[in-house]
Amino acid sequence: MSKPTALSGFPELLPAQRAVEQQVLDTLREVFELHGFAGIETRAVEPLDVLLRKGDTAKEVYLLRRLHETAEEGHAGFGLHFDLTVPFARYVLEHAGHLEFPFRRYQLQKVWRGERPQDGRFREFTQADIDVVGRDVLPAHHDVEVTRVMVDALRRLDFLPGFTLQVNNRKLVVGAYAALGLTEPAVVDEVMRLVDKLDKLPAAEVRTQLVAAGLDDATAGTVLDLAGIVTPDDTVAARVADLLGADAVAGSPLLAEGLDELSSLLRGVADLVDDRTRVVADLSIARGLDYYTGTVFETRLDGFESLGSICSGGRYDALATDGRTTYPGVGISFGVSRVVVPLVTRTGLAADRSVPSAVLVALTDEDSRPASDAVAAALRARRIPCEVAASAQRFGKQIRYAERRGIPYVWFPAPPAGTTGTTGSGAHQVKDIRSGDQVDADPASWTPPTEDLRPRVQAKEQQ
Amino acid sequence: MSKPTALSGFPELLPAQRAVEQQVLDTLREVFELHGFAGIETRAVEPLDVLLRKGDTAKEVYLLRRLHETAEEGHAGFGLHFDLTVPFARYVLEHAGHLEFPFRRYQLQKVWRGERPQDGRFREFTQADIDVVGRDVLPAHHDVEVTRVMVDALRRLDFLPGFTLQVNNRKLVVGAYAALGLTEPAVVDEVMRLVDKLDKLPAAEVRTQLVAAGLDDATAGTVLDLAGIVTPDDTVAARVADLLGADAVAGSPLLAEGLDELSSLLRGVADLVDDRTRVVADLSIARGLDYYTGTVFETRLDGFESLGSICSGGRYDALATDGRTTYPGVGISFGVSRVVVPLVTRTGLAADRSVPSAVLVALTDEDSRPASDAVAAALRARRIPCEVAASAQRFGKQIRYAERRGIPYVWFPAPPAGTTGTTGSGAHQVKDIRSGDQVDADPASWTPPTEDLRPRVQAKEQQ
Repeated sequence: MSKPTALSGFPELLPAQRAVEQQVLDTLREVFELHGFAGIETRAVEPLDVLLRKGDTAKEVYLLRRLHETAEEGHAGFGLHFDLTVPFARYVLEHAGHLEFPFRRYQLQKVWRGERPQDGRFREFTQADIDVVGRDVLPAHHDVEVTRVMVDALRRLDFLPGFTLQVNNRKLVVGAYAALGLTEPAVVDEVMRLVDKLDKLPAAEVRTQLVAAGLDDATAGTVLDLAGIVTPDDTVAARVADLLGADAVAGSPLLAEGLDELSSLLRGVADLVDDRTRVVADLSIARGLDYYTGTVFETRLDGFESLGSICSGGRYDALATDGRTTYPGVGISFGVSRVVVPLVTRTGLAADRSVPSAVLVALTDEDSRPASDAVAAALRARRIPCEVAASAQRFGKQIRYAERRGIPYVWFPAPPAGTTGTTGSGAHQVKDIRSGDQVDADPASWTPPTEDLRPRVQAKEQQ
Repeated sequence: MSKPTALSGFPELLPAQRAVEQQVLDTLREVFELHGFAGIETRAVEPLDVLLRKGDTAKEVYLLRRLHETAEEGHAGFGLHFDLTVPFARYVLEHAGHLEFPFRRYQLQKVWRGERPQDGRFREFTQADIDVVGRDVLPAHHDVEVTRVMVDALRRLDFLPGFTLQVNNRKLVVGAYAALGLTEPAVVDEVMRLVDKLDKLPAAEVRTQLVAAGLDDATAGTVLDLAGIVTPDDTVAARVADLLGADAVAGSPLLAEGLDELSSLLRGVADLVDDRTRVVADLSIARGLDYYTGTVFETRLDGFESLGSICSGGRYDALATDGRTTYPGVGISFGVSRVVVPLVTRTGLAADRSVPSAVLVALTDEDSRPASDAVAAALRARRIPCEVAASAQRFGKQIRYAERRGIPYVWFPAPPAGTTGTTGSGAHQVKDIRSGDQVDADPASWTPPTEDLRPRVQAKEQQ
């Protein structure tokens, strides 16, 4: 085989980079489970009719066929899932009889999209999704719950830059548009689609397009003023009332309900806000996906704004229904690869070692491998990851072997009784190769500091 | 959407079943990391020329294409990987300049095979692979190492039935065949292929086929006698010498080397053997894959023999080479889905709860949700998974809500000062709903027994 080359859009990580991704996944999972979310996995494959219901991503689907497909199975119509929401809705319908509702689940899985690889876009990437799904009804406090859980998880990733979670509510937007006389569904959808361009186009350009779509200039201006409301606290209701008039709010139960849900959400997460963690009402957030019916989320990462939203979701009241029963849900999805891959490739973020081993057990000579194995076994029995040197090189070379991998400690086994050990001592010794300190140690009791047990990931600024 | 149905060959687990699989994966990962194996993931997709080099699985490959593929990218020739060994060999070649050798890695990932779904065969399944790869050379003690690591991991899965790891060595087999006058590579391959059928066909039938392949009857008999050697200790060398004659062994360095490696391996893992864990030399094990060059492994699970080998691998001296440098390796692959799916579907193995929550915090009324949330936050701060009741039903209904999910504890928050609580006490109380015991408790200090912190999986016999 000649040297293989990377496939564009299919990122692969080196071991010390994968350790960063693994710590992200471990932290997410721990927080999700502390909040009672059960982990599931869905198959990678869905029937095309399930995948293509969400029309705007049809172009991105990867189709599957067997190399030697038989006539009867040909064109069976299966593809790889492009998100975890559509398969989860299918899972809920398929297994509803065996699930307890409200059903909280998380999913940490790869998804595939056949789109053109470009900045921050991958063809294969890992997502972390949490959703709560009810049967028939799902109270609004679950919108607050999923927000809190995801913010709690992201806050604990202390090597992440700061971030801003932007929240809006579709009831608020649809209610406000109705108050402006915009009620035709096709017009409402088109206005939302144009407002969603505000992060890419100047406001004046969007305004021109709104007028071209049939809005009079004053209404287009109000639509943009509404989208311009961004506030970190629950003054959002007052600002909307200022813009549209208190009568408009009082006269629209949908607008009032949206405002109430949005204000409740901001109050419900206020205690999680800090310098790195911001939550704002941002009335320009519309989300492209038409299944959202209430709360919608996007998230921007400081210094990585070009990535777009790294964590998105919302409330969907009718994504999963079998005709008789409807399963309303609310969820949020964090783009693990979308964040981790740029962090490791652009900023050089990596674990401080490329192996799990905290200790390299040195090898005096090949005949004494059992003695070194015994030291390793004693350390592992107390959950200290370690490895035995691959060959009995000079100890200086074995120390460099550890250095190249970032292993912090080298263990020198006690010389056999009656011999003079290379370490100059009759006891086992362990060297911290960062400080050079070398001390006598007992394999049955020596323990490294907790922070040395696992590879460490630190933000580049702190290193 | 009408009710979706399962896809044959793509197993999906319910939450309490997925908890079993998750515990298997967690245990494997912990053991692999204690032994210094670094976790990596490779992309799901490989170029077809990489996938099809291993000819005998060509029929099983799933090809990928984009739904709206453009002319220039059409027939680019990518497929889903069908194992983790081929992608790992490609990863080593691609990233060799950034890796330290010997390189120990584990991979816990899904693979796909488009074969006809049948008993124990899936089209999508999870594998757990460990390999050690060297640059140019890799001493034989690494064969012992990967065996020990995998046996250590499987032993710790105490809900698994007992198992037998069967070990053979291709050098031994090829050397022995040469001593019998069988040296033509095509003949050796054909004899190995026929011997590999011994677990499916009667020996007499295999003998007939050996003779049909050109062996004289005596040689066919000796080939079968050799394959019949099964021994749990290092008497294997003596038994081969008895069969072929000491001169044959002395006259074949390859045979002697194979015998020495096999005996060393059996001695090297002898201390891990117990009632549930057996390791035997079994000279009928040949493995279908032609890249193995020394040690080969298969594993049978007690009571699940129809699954075939659940854990297989071996030594490959030339799987990865770029023409200038060769990377010899030894590895072993455990079929996680192949074992977990039959255990949960046939024996009903499942975790004792369907959610991670150890505690359901009850809700007195919707207005007191913040008080229940505060209890939950205090428990989570001490890493106790919990959830707050979804609605303020009667406490009896909330207890049944916990029971249906298998949550062992229900927490009754203290009534607000000045009121008489439903619990009849002014303090917080926690009830173990299995025993009915209810005691006063402080959210800042109450801790359940360690075994209640996580969902538990027990072998059915023990339940």
